[in-house]
Amino acid sequence: MDNSFIYGKNAIIEALEAGNREFNRILISNTSRSDEKIEKIKELAKSKGIVFQFVGKEKLNQIAQDARHQGVVAQISPVQYIDLDEFIENNSGENTSVVVLDGVEDSHNLGAIIRSCVCAGVKGIILPSRRGVLVNSTVEKTSAGAVNHISIIKVNSIVNAIQRLKEKNYWVIAADNHCEDNYYDIDYTDMNFALVMGAEHAGISKSLIKLADFKVKIPMLTNFNSLNVSNATAIILFESVRQNVSKKRG
Amino acid sequence: MDNSFIYGKNAIIEALEAGNREFNRILISNTSRSDEKIEKIKELAKSKGIVFQFVGKEKLNQIAQDARHQGVVAQISPVQYIDLDEFIENNSGENTSVVVLDGVEDSHNLGAIIRSCVCAGVKGIILPSRRGVLVNSTVEKTSAGAVNHISIIKVNSIVNAIQRLKEKNYWVIAADNHCEDNYYDIDYTDMNFALVMGAEHAGISKSLIKLADFKVKIPMLTNFNSLNVSNATAIILFESVRQNVSKKRG
Repeated sequence: MDNSFIYGKNAIIEALEAGNREFNRILISNTSRSDEKIEKIKELAKSKGIVFQFVGKEKLNQIAQDARHQGVVAQISPVQYIDLDEFIENNSGENTSVVVLDGVEDSHNLGAIIRSCVCAGVKGIILPSRRGVLVNSTVEKTSAGAVNHISIIKVNSIVNAIQRLKEKNYWVIAADNHCEDNYYDIDYTDMNFALVMGAEHAGISKSLIKLADFKVKIPMLTNFNSLNVSNATAIILFESVRQNVSKKRG
Repeated sequence: MDNSFIYGKNAIIEALEAGNREFNRILISNTSRSDEKIEKIKELAKSKGIVFQFVGKEKLNQIAQDARHQGVVAQISPVQYIDLDEFIENNSGENTSVVVLDGVEDSHNLGAIIRSCVCAGVKGIILPSRRGVLVNSTVEKTSAGAVNHISIIKVNSIVNAIQRLKEKNYWVIAADNHCEDNYYDIDYTDMNFALVMGAEHAGISKSLIKLADFKVKIPMLTNFNSLNVSNATAIILFESVRQNVSKKRG
């Protein structure tokens, strides 16, 4: 088994509960005080026949390097990436949303984006295989286990992926602060959509903006026109949630 | 001068342009290829009489530790915290918003929150002096220089700060996912408000929720009810921006 490490109580509880990852073993600090979450991890591990061991804190520090492991680390199978066509097939017949990241580089940002996507009911996240960050231990931790509740799609070409989504009846929304329209002027409630977000410094590629059906900006109240990409993604996604919840409520 | 280091091109350009920090010197990698932003840093430094030096990349790596410095580091005076009463006095006579963080611990989160605050026209950010993170180099970098465009208020007691804000005609909004009302049902356009956000794991203190005039949640489309705190803050703040922009337009 090609193993990954994940760390942090919430990330490990989520992965245990989601049940789609193969656990090798769980390492728990033999000096940390136990608490409700550690007890929950032990119980879940027992019920699933997963080995857990008590080890010195130095061992955990070494595995997690500089990251805060909260006294628990799990060695598990890596996240499974899926194909775009498989994803599209699995999610036909309902309004589906995906987020496309055009080369996001920071693990904390990717983790936070995945978390917001799951909360907002987004079904998939598309990452380029050769630019930007993929799912690593920091992403797992900062996603608080959300990586186990969404399809992660790795593609060689974002352009091709977007063309494929368009063929399959997805509306493509590109977010870029040089665009004219405001993100909240779109009606998100009755369509499949793919929200395309750019990288931290470079923003979104011009070729992708050209392909978009909607080109939107997030208006600001000052001239400091620079949102963190995970915050910008959350703002747009939760406008779609707001519209959907309001519509249901009637 | 008690010095801080900041790193990253945008953070340094922002600090140079904002002009409210005293620069000791700027260190630029002698091996990185120059670009538009490095040239801009050199020009700004020259025009302000600030020394810049070319040094080996190892020196920069050592100062920035594990963080990505992008070939440039500046040694500058630390961020100046201001008093709550001074802040309130400086911002009377207009609708003012502040964000109160009840013990946010992660530097990346604080940096992203400060950035969103500045974009959303928030005038101040209140941090507890003894819990959670204060402004450090990682916060400066992840804020992309936004720390220089907002008042950072450090208080001994968040409870006292909130009581003071209430006396001074601020409406207090507490965000917690156990609350009933949706954040978008508040009219943010015609009041001073203080948005109170909880820490990453502990959430918001019960004593603070009790003091709030509005208690709101962010509705989700799934049961994975766990947003990153910087994303949650951005979602609420940009609903206030949406309402303000729409009102002006309408």
